[in-house]
Amino acid sequence: MLNNIRIVLVDTSHPGNIGAVARAMKNMCLSQLYLVNPLQFPDAEATSRASGADDLLDRAKVVETLDQALDGCRLVVGTSARARTVNWPVTSPRESAQKLVAESELGDVALVFGRERSGLTNSELDRCTFLVHIPTNQEYSSLNLGMAVQVLSYEVYLANLQKTPAEAEPARDLATADMLQSFHSHLEQALDDIGFTDTRQSEKLLRRLRSLFQRARLDKDEVNILRGIFSAMQGRKSMRR
Amino acid sequence: MLNNIRIVLVDTSHPGNIGAVARAMKNMCLSQLYLVNPLQFPDAEATSRASGADDLLDRAKVVETLDQALDGCRLVVGTSARARTVNWPVTSPRESAQKLVAESELGDVALVFGRERSGLTNSELDRCTFLVHIPTNQEYSSLNLGMAVQVLSYEVYLANLQKTPAEAEPARDLATADMLQSFHSHLEQALDDIGFTDTRQSEKLLRRLRSLFQRARLDKDEVNILRGIFSAMQGRKSMRR
Repeated sequence: MLNNIRIVLVDTSHPGNIGAVARAMKNMCLSQLYLVNPLQFPDAEATSRASGADDLLDRAKVVETLDQALDGCRLVVGTSARARTVNWPVTSPRESAQKLVAESELGDVALVFGRERSGLTNSELDRCTFLVHIPTNQEYSSLNLGMAVQVLSYEVYLANLQKTPAEAEPARDLATADMLQSFHSHLEQALDDIGFTDTRQSEKLLRRLRSLFQRARLDKDEVNILRGIFSAMQGRKSMRR
Repeated sequence: MLNNIRIVLVDTSHPGNIGAVARAMKNMCLSQLYLVNPLQFPDAEATSRASGADDLLDRAKVVETLDQALDGCRLVVGTSARARTVNWPVTSPRESAQKLVAESELGDVALVFGRERSGLTNSELDRCTFLVHIPTNQEYSSLNLGMAVQVLSYEVYLANLQKTPAEAEPARDLATADMLQSFHSHLEQALDDIGFTDTRQSEKLLRRLRSLFQRARLDKDEVNILRGIFSAMQGRKSMRR
């Protein structure tokens, strides 16, 4: 139930970031945006950066306190720039996304992002069930707010997809062993006809080509195309129409 | 070897996005930025959005063609907004990141991003070993460029943290992107010389062949063998000794 997952932004300074967050959320099928005390909202820059996700901005809930934004939530995950803290369990994005998705089946849950420069305060972290940390370059660790929302929303979207059985890739109609056998005989004959083969070398060469085409796992169409080329090499048939 | 991983942006329109990409890369310990024909660069907006990652902008390589950006790369991964395509294998961000990290131990690799509005062209996708698709909301699928780089860079960073040695297949001396480009030009010319091509069909046919050889991941010897065959097809050289 992605509709039960709230993205909560606390004291956001730059309206452009709010727009970028809306777009990132909508890309990942999230829709519930809560803004705690945004410095400037609504704002033209937010709408512009939302780029078609302005419906999320229109429906965003603007509230005064974090507690209002978290009202009714059974699970609250706070984002932290620190990989570990003294008191809170810190999870990976993947693990926290799985928990958010699993618990969202049971009720409302929230993922909370702090200020652009300083993150969440200790008393805000107090509201969180656990924290999530996005692994980064230790010497340059500050992710842009929109980017952090994008990464975590992506993990939430994946976690939600993986609840349902994964789809198999559409089956290619692979060439059968007998078709491949004829294919390689044809190739050998064609190379001979154009004077490419060399008695000492040809066995090794043909093995090389065999290994290449096995690796490619040729499908039936491809065998036909290549055999067309071999015939043209042999001058038996012209493909120019 | 995260230093062997190139992020390549093709025909970027908005300098702000270039800045956001630099920041996203640096957050995830990536440093090699290639810009193919940026509309405006360098630019104050790029520097501002880079927010302390301007060293990456200073060292970015600005080139005129995608081929220049891919020169020397043994693996090229292209980003695609489509979850599947007819001819190219499409992988998940996680899987592609693991491959990029594993192959970067052996040489240069590239992750290519297209235009903000229209992505990569078919002929640009032709240069790619395989594609990667970020799963998104099907009704609102267009990720901002910086966001797409952030998600994939994050997966690359995680894959690098989690990498286990000996993940890469025993090193074959793979053909580089520039060698493959010449290879395909030679193939096209050779097919033309033997009268195989047909104006209506040839583009589709060549793409089919490209996909086949990309899938096979040709090594340098194989490229030489096949080009020998092409030359023989063209009658330029006889291999009979």
